[in-house]
Amino acid sequence: MNEFEAVDSEVQWEGSFLRAGLERFRYPDGAEVSRDKVWHQGAVGIVAVDEQSVWLTRQPREVVNARASLEIPAGKLDVPGESPLETGQRELREEIGKQAGSWEEIVSFFTSPGFSDERVWLFLATDLSDCGVGSADEDERIEVARWPLDRLDQAISETDDGKTLVALLWLKGRRPQD
Amino acid sequence: MNEFEAVDSEVQWEGSFLRAGLERFRYPDGAEVSRDKVWHQGAVGIVAVDEQSVWLTRQPREVVNARASLEIPAGKLDVPGESPLETGQRELREEIGKQAGSWEEIVSFFTSPGFSDERVWLFLATDLSDCGVGSADEDERIEVARWPLDRLDQAISETDDGKTLVALLWLKGRRPQD
Repeated sequence: MNEFEAVDSEVQWEGSFLRAGLERFRYPDGAEVSRDKVWHQGAVGIVAVDEQSVWLTRQPREVVNARASLEIPAGKLDVPGESPLETGQRELREEIGKQAGSWEEIVSFFTSPGFSDERVWLFLATDLSDCGVGSADEDERIEVARWPLDRLDQAISETDDGKTLVALLWLKGRRPQD
Repeated sequence: MNEFEAVDSEVQWEGSFLRAGLERFRYPDGAEVSRDKVWHQGAVGIVAVDEQSVWLTRQPREVVNARASLEIPAGKLDVPGESPLETGQRELREEIGKQAGSWEEIVSFFTSPGFSDERVWLFLATDLSDCGVGSADEDERIEVARWPLDRLDQAISETDDGKTLVALLWLKGRRPQD
């Protein structure tokens, strides 16, 4: 079913890291559809846990008017040649000041596949240790929040961020039930 | 902390339903940041369950080159004046051909708050009954998939869609453990 092929792709706008435009697709029955598209390089989120806690951040998300969005550590795949795992390792260091002895890919998904090719990879990072002060970008205003695992439901209620919901619901399902 | 204010907002591209551009924000310390932004009207997803099953769809998602993306029924808030609940009721009818006696809001979240204001509302729909053939848009090629609840883990593994992951992980957490 649905063996469409792309017949046209046109970038019509370029921002600082996004591009937007139109793509056109043709189906075997001859039908053609046009889609708005936002190109995005992809991103990584990290579920960094120790025995008691999951490490979260609070940071402004200006475009949704959020002063302190509660999120897992995360970052864009914006270093050429870097794999999702390497991006995750870098972001954990920069945002939380930690390194992890164990990394495991949990899942990857599209944040909004109707219009954007942004894919997010989630990793579980365990066996955490300090690795000194981070070096976040100057315009990142990130606070670290060490969140007790026995209050996971509260973090799930509080966050408005899709990737963080996926991460925390997954983490909740993995823990022994109280 | 972080009491930024918007100082400029410029739409630079308009697609068929998206807009993209730049917004600029100022912090109390005088710093200014510029953000790529994609404006989106928002969307609704429905967790439609009966005793045995959750109702899913398979549909092409051309911009991520997916022929049959496994997703919950969903749709954009593209009817003026319609509330998220009303959009959910309409989409369940159009995509699945069902109505629900009970609707409950589960959660809402931003799909990618770093650059887009797209918010997704998830509803739990129960007490389902048939309401005749749907009337999906002509370019929607949607197959209905009645998915057994005892194979929920398989759907979680198979889907690549963020809102569907949130929905199914939430549903898994709500069910009695096997």
